[in-house]
Amino acid sequence: MLIYLAGPDVFLPDAVEIGRRKAEICALHGLTGLYPLDNAVNPAAAHASRTIFRSNETMMESADAIIANLTPFRGPSADAGTVYELGYMAGRGKLCLAYSNDPASYANRVARLHQVAAAPDGRLIDAEGMMVEEFGLPDNLMMMHALELHGSPLVTPRQAPEDIWRDLASFEACVRVAARHAGLI
Amino acid sequence: MLIYLAGPDVFLPDAVEIGRRKAEICALHGLTGLYPLDNAVNPAAAHASRTIFRSNETMMESADAIIANLTPFRGPSADAGTVYELGYMAGRGKLCLAYSNDPASYANRVARLHQVAAAPDGRLIDAEGMMVEEFGLPDNLMMMHALELHGSPLVTPRQAPEDIWRDLASFEACVRVAARHAGLI
Repeated sequence: MLIYLAGPDVFLPDAVEIGRRKAEICALHGLTGLYPLDNAVNPAAAHASRTIFRSNETMMESADAIIANLTPFRGPSADAGTVYELGYMAGRGKLCLAYSNDPASYANRVARLHQVAAAPDGRLIDAEGMMVEEFGLPDNLMMMHALELHGSPLVTPRQAPEDIWRDLASFEACVRVAARHAGLI
Repeated sequence: MLIYLAGPDVFLPDAVEIGRRKAEICALHGLTGLYPLDNAVNPAAAHASRTIFRSNETMMESADAIIANLTPFRGPSADAGTVYELGYMAGRGKLCLAYSNDPASYANRVARLHQVAAAPDGRLIDAEGMMVEEFGLPDNLMMMHALELHGSPLVTPRQAPEDIWRDLASFEACVRVAARHAGLI
């Protein structure tokens, strides 16, 4: 089973090393991890961003499954590129798995970063007057329920690990789910 | 042509009115807009979030196209639910159109909200040491190039309108593109 390894991990200073560790965990469970940085693209080259997009889309097409890192990135929600990829793989009918190293509910994540208050009708709103989802889910309901339907519910730790970007325990839990789906366990 | 109207518009206090205006603009161009709030779900009901997810997925399945509002939401990127839906529709092979009422580049959006600096190798990084995409695109490259491949490039105004959540000029530009695709122009 080929697994597309999606996440903002690619933006880490040690992005290549994280990808190597993730692929290693996949291999330990009899699976093959495909990491976007396996496509070597020079970011300074002409049309580099389009080349990266095409390489990633080709990689997703060849994969049977996705494991997305939905740890909040520069805001209360997951990285937009990763979320796009999760949606794309769901649309393509692939197995969708994901984890977040921050188990907090979306409402709590918003409250950590923005002013929130109760509107006259009791609903939680932010400073712009926009409603805050309060379903107790860690992120937007579309992604959270998509995982249930197209794969397996989001994996989260009981509490956030010390190194939120490098702890791979929840990632490995997703790999085990994938191995079960592949009939390897 | 049935168009799924995706966006954080559903979180506005006047969400229903915005949906009505968007559907009206679609109708003026001979198209039918499908707005998530057309599925009346009581947010306090049991399993409300799952019911909303299923209604939205059914609506997306019935649609021929998506027009996604990718205006930045609670961070430098678009709303995660909307991005998921854009990815899903791309994966399903539907026509993908989108607009952002904030024309700023992603790097500038990040710099407005976070501390950024040049790393020793010259690349832009945030306070966590994570790389900031600097391709001059308004948001993550996956969504931006997906639009080119699966529909039409992101529509942005020359400068952000006064009411970033209610100005529908860029939305209407997307509707015109959809009408051209439907052979109505």
